Amino acid sequence: MWRIYQFPLCPFSRKVRLLLSEKGVGYELWRADPWNADDEFWAMNPAGRTPVLHDPDKKVSLSDSRAICEYFEETVDKAPMINGTAANRAEIRRLVALFDENFFGDVTMPLLHERMKKRLILRQPPDSRVLREAMKLAHGHLDYIDWLVDTRPWLAGPQMSLADLALAAQISVADYLGGIDWDGHEQARSWYAVFKSRPSFGPLLSERMEVIQPPSHYALLDD
Amino acid sequence: MWRIYQFPLCPFSRKVRLLLSEKGVGYELWRADPWNADDEFWAMNPAGRTPVLHDPDKKVSLSDSRAICEYFEETVDKAPMINGTAANRAEIRRLVALFDENFFGDVTMPLLHERMKKRLILRQPPDSRVLREAMKLAHGHLDYIDWLVDTRPWLAGPQMSLADLALAAQISVADYLGGIDWDGHEQARSWYAVFKSRPSFGPLLSERMEVIQPPSHYALLDD
Ligand SMILES: N[C@@H](CCC(=O)N[C@@H](CS)C(=O)NCC(=O)O)C(=O)O
Ligand SMILES: N[C@@H](CCC(=O)N[C@@H](CS)C(=O)NCC(=O)O)C(=O)O
Repeated sequence: MWRIYQFPLCPFSRKVRLLLSEKGVGYELWRADPWNADDEFWAMNPAGRTPVLHDPDKKVSLSDSRAICEYFEETVDKAPMINGTAANRAEIRRLVALFDENFFGDVTMPLLHERMKKRLILRQPPDSRVLREAMKLAHGHLDYIDWLVDTRPWLAGPQMSLADLALAAQISVADYLGGIDWDGHEQARSWYAVFKSRPSFGPLLSERMEVIQPPSHYALLDD
Repeated sequence: MWRIYQFPLCPFSRKVRLLLSEKGVGYELWRADPWNADDEFWAMNPAGRTPVLHDPDKKVSLSDSRAICEYFEETVDKAPMINGTAANRAEIRRLVALFDENFFGDVTMPLLHERMKKRLILRQPPDSRVLREAMKLAHGHLDYIDWLVDTRPWLAGPQMSLADLALAAQISVADYLGGIDWDGHEQARSWYAVFKSRPSFGPLLSERMEVIQPPSHYALLDD
């Protein structure tokens, strides 16, 4: 059985978990904190990052969440998530990169730094200026999501795709950390509400990171 | 004909150019500086980043260099660069991510910031502490490349792949900016020397970024 090395608030691990659940691939969760990574973890992934997928029987380790997703897309037929023409697939991958890099860099990463790392590791209070800036940038991203939801059935086109999973993973972490304000983003909110009620999402919503509590609406399916 | 919007020292644009040349796909270079991006550029790529590929006849825009490379891999048979079994392909993509994200973040990006952005845009002197740290981290990356070159014919396995193109693109920019010291890295140096003499590499080595000059060894094929 595949093991996923991750911590509860890693958005890239969440994206992989959503993909595996949609595809019906079983996995075990193994806790790994990149800020405490030991030699064994570095040997599995020389980038020193989560997620890492490891199959102890086959002695295979996979890392980089996009490489992992492409691997399961190529090896498991069920629930294709990078589908369609080459142009459709380029659009899916463009959006995955936008969410993994820009949304993460602008929103999720500063929230993780201020509200998780400072609390658990650095023992410092969060910087409210950084939090405000992240929430301001989140609004810009949500404007673009509103527009995508207005123009297409799913974010990248006619079918649910890895782009939807990638954004849902980022938003779920940002929302856990109190960084998402849906005000003025009805389209994005309704897209996320549909997503939250999928069976693949349940395990993410019930998981908690020690010490850090999500806001009360976080796991509610109608909010 | 495809247009590539880029600036001469963008490593992600260089990776795409190497791929297109190896595959024999023609393109025109169009200059775009992300730090001066206009509305037209943001419309082509909502991430506001280079490279963007645009075909004015087909009215198609592609962005994110990995999505672009997958697109040409899927549509052009010549010179496959993401090849082999699903596990081989995962290894290629893992290394591309390592070079695009970790090597770029540790080495190329700080060099671009200190030696290009500060010179051209901010009009500040470079911070020598940041430059020293980038060069120290470069040694760590080159140690890992030495090990890969010792264990495999090409970085990701038996064939040249997108992993080789991705690293060569990053190293060429870091070397232009004086950030690569090959001392103690004979394996990595010999791998790069082979690469530099490929026809696809010539156009990169002869291009110059205004104001900023590369060191004298930069375009020499035996150094
Ligand atoms: N490209 C990687 C990014 C993974 C990543 O940045 N993971 C974070 C945790 S959310 C991490 O391990 N950061 C530690 C570090 O960068 O040193 C992926 O998609 O898997
Ligand atoms: N994931 C993107 C990254 C591209 C990237 O970071 N490009 C840099 C230039 S080398 C850029 O446009 N930076 C401007 C910015 O991030 O705002 C890709 O692979 O194309």
